Amino acid sequence: MTDTQPLRIAIAGLGTVGAGVIRLLGTNRDLIAARAGRAIEVVAVSARDRSTDRGVDLSGYAWEDDMSALAARDDIDVLVELVGGSDGPALAASRAALSAGKGLVTANKAMIAHHGLQLAELAENARVPLKFEAAVAGGIPVVKGLREGTSANALTKVYGILNGTCNYILSEMEETGADFADTLAEAQRLGYAEADPTFDIEGIDAAHKLAILAAIGFGAKVDFDAVHISGIVQVRAADIAQADALGFVIRLIAQADVEGEGANAKLLQRVRPCLVAKDHPLASVDGPTNAVVAEGNFSGRLLFQGAGAGEGPTASAVVADLIDIARSEVGAPFSIPVAQLTPLAPAEPGNRMERNYLRFTVNDRPGVLAEITAAMRDADVSIESLIQQGRANQGGDVLVAMVTHEGPEANVRRALDLLEGSDSLTGEPLVLPILPN
Amino acid sequence: MTDTQPLRIAIAGLGTVGAGVIRLLGTNRDLIAARAGRAIEVVAVSARDRSTDRGVDLSGYAWEDDMSALAARDDIDVLVELVGGSDGPALAASRAALSAGKGLVTANKAMIAHHGLQLAELAENARVPLKFEAAVAGGIPVVKGLREGTSANALTKVYGILNGTCNYILSEMEETGADFADTLAEAQRLGYAEADPTFDIEGIDAAHKLAILAAIGFGAKVDFDAVHISGIVQVRAADIAQADALGFVIRLIAQADVEGEGANAKLLQRVRPCLVAKDHPLASVDGPTNAVVAEGNFSGRLLFQGAGAGEGPTASAVVADLIDIARSEVGAPFSIPVAQLTPLAPAEPGNRMERNYLRFTVNDRPGVLAEITAAMRDADVSIESLIQQGRANQGGDVLVAMVTHEGPEANVRRALDLLEGSDSLTGEPLVLPILPN
Repeated sequence: MTDTQPLRIAIAGLGTVGAGVIRLLGTNRDLIAARAGRAIEVVAVSARDRSTDRGVDLSGYAWEDDMSALAARDDIDVLVELVGGSDGPALAASRAALSAGKGLVTANKAMIAHHGLQLAELAENARVPLKFEAAVAGGIPVVKGLREGTSANALTKVYGILNGTCNYILSEMEETGADFADTLAEAQRLGYAEADPTFDIEGIDAAHKLAILAAIGFGAKVDFDAVHISGIVQVRAADIAQADALGFVIRLIAQADVEGEGANAKLLQRVRPCLVAKDHPLASVDGPTNAVVAEGNFSGRLLFQGAGAGEGPTASAVVADLIDIARSEVGAPFSIPVAQLTPLAPAEPGNRMERNYLRFTVNDRPGVLAEITAAMRDADVSIESLIQQGRANQGGDVLVAMVTHEGPEANVRRALDLLEGSDSLTGEPLVLPILPN
Repeated sequence: MTDTQPLRIAIAGLGTVGAGVIRLLGTNRDLIAARAGRAIEVVAVSARDRSTDRGVDLSGYAWEDDMSALAARDDIDVLVELVGGSDGPALAASRAALSAGKGLVTANKAMIAHHGLQLAELAENARVPLKFEAAVAGGIPVVKGLREGTSANALTKVYGILNGTCNYILSEMEETGADFADTLAEAQRLGYAEADPTFDIEGIDAAHKLAILAAIGFGAKVDFDAVHISGIVQVRAADIAQADALGFVIRLIAQADVEGEGANAKLLQRVRPCLVAKDHPLASVDGPTNAVVAEGNFSGRLLFQGAGAGEGPTASAVVADLIDIARSEVGAPFSIPVAQLTPLAPAEPGNRMERNYLRFTVNDRPGVLAEITAAMRDADVSIESLIQQGRANQGGDVLVAMVTHEGPEANVRRALDLLEGSDSLTGEPLVLPILPN
């Protein structure tokens, strides 16, 4: 609050978010200065191609072709890294900034999920800020929410909807009855999905964000490699219809919790499509919206919801971090200094008790149902309800969907193993867990 | 982060929240120390009656009968004020703490709504922290959410459900069909409403919280006296049934926004029961839950939701503030220093365009409907739909409910003025605005 020199920043990467940050700093200049206690000024910028028209006036800023040179300029206090990609120029520039004693603000979830601990250690040693609110859930202040809002709590769970592309596709499928491929194509046309949607639809993007939230929420070292990931590619229109009939919607849920205590504590991190009861707060999260639930031992259940991506929301998160830095309200990037974060061992998912939705595509002939239910019995999976589609679809197969009673996940896996290779099945079975309310 | 001395606190007020803070500091001791960078230690306590059994062990703490003496003790860094009441011992102790150069953490919404600016000025002059996360929406970190999360945005609106008692009563009425008085009695029996529920059901508690959020969100001086307040006492079971038939629920909504710009900017703050469309995120906020929506010019719509009261959630918010202080992450209590907050003039509500729900209780005789609709026509109120209950209820009167098209609020008032004194009406008409989606 006492420092009245402007906070001088350099921006590396001038895509949608970079241009948005420049626009935001211009539009809200006075109120940002009032809240930050001083002006926030862009000094220099860098991007891959200088000639692109980005719709913002860059003439007042120095240009650097080399991002690492940008990061180390004498006349800046903070580098804003908006290049993206876990390695390459983003990581090089980020390291260069911290090594030169500059603060770092980034929206780069992949880089923080893979190299966040190392960067935080560099920042802590250099006593400079590292902040990454924009890396998780766009404009929703959930990094601050966990780092500062729930700081008094031992969290029991963190989970939510962290990928707007998947949520848009699933809620559109729900709305229109269309199948995955058509809905993805439409989402690409509308700009809700990228030309190469792999990171989104396979759950990797959500897993990056989850690994970051889990580290902050549970005081654990970031462990992206331990996240169990499955995407939404296998979800069919028929699954969404069955789920609807049973009182659920399907959402891609990223979830983390800790089992055991002290030296035996283990961290389970998963990203997978789940059935969500219609009266659960996450069931009404539609379109590209994101939402995060944090359950604390004193706070109870908290929900943070908002736009998970986009120029304005992401720029809002980046500039909020800059205001924190201008105010000198900065501390350990992961809430606890890296040296004190616990390296939590990964938990085995098979130990959990869950209810599941199972869907089989089978030949339309007598005896198939008996074969499936026998496998369930032999694997000790208890069936709560079962629907067999009356009529073969175009492929000549019919769909059998069921919901199990709560039981060990491993039993469901065993039942599927028993059915492996059966010529009654015409495709890979789909297992979707039911999110507890 | 560099200060490894414990943060030493005194607690004034040992009711539910005070005992909760002591329990929380004990239960989560290690993780709090890790996140805060140092231990948080209770040194001394005070309450009205020393002999009460509060279910927590106080033997390790010094006792002070006088709260202002407690606040000024040499061996404390921060006073935690949990006495309640806008004036009296809470205010005296708070002033004493700040004057003695101690930080202040409080859950006291009435005191902050009435004296927050003066206390913040004292704190800013003494360069000590003043924090009040627990004063608004219990365990939901919405003060931090607005102060830090949305800090880059010019907010266009802040609104939400800020009183758990009213929300519990309204959602119970919805669930059971019972009328207000019975539901209030049940809420009192279950501990969701106090023996004297006036502050809650008349909307005053929500107004306290709204005035605080508006100040932070809009950079305005707190102006509790300018809040237009109406409570939920007039809402009948029949209104909830009519609203339901029309696709709405009824919620007590606290809302603030700014109209005009620069020197002409005016602040409108209101607390009133509203019809909320069933697909609005606030419609699914049931029971004692609170929720706040903040709409920023870059962030878009953000929602913060969670437990609005109770021992654990409120203690969670108090201790989060203490952790901020231990981390030295503190700045202007209202986000902008008091001297720079704008004294926004109150806006006239009658200028707004709104859709409204109107309910009349009338004599069951011919011509009444013609009289009401003529008044609407004369006041230029356009009726979208109208329902006249078929049968007289116990009181011998029938209910006429209507929804208007969007129009100036003042016209609705004029229509009611035209009907004033009519012997067709058997009771005061009820006007509930429809919350825009």
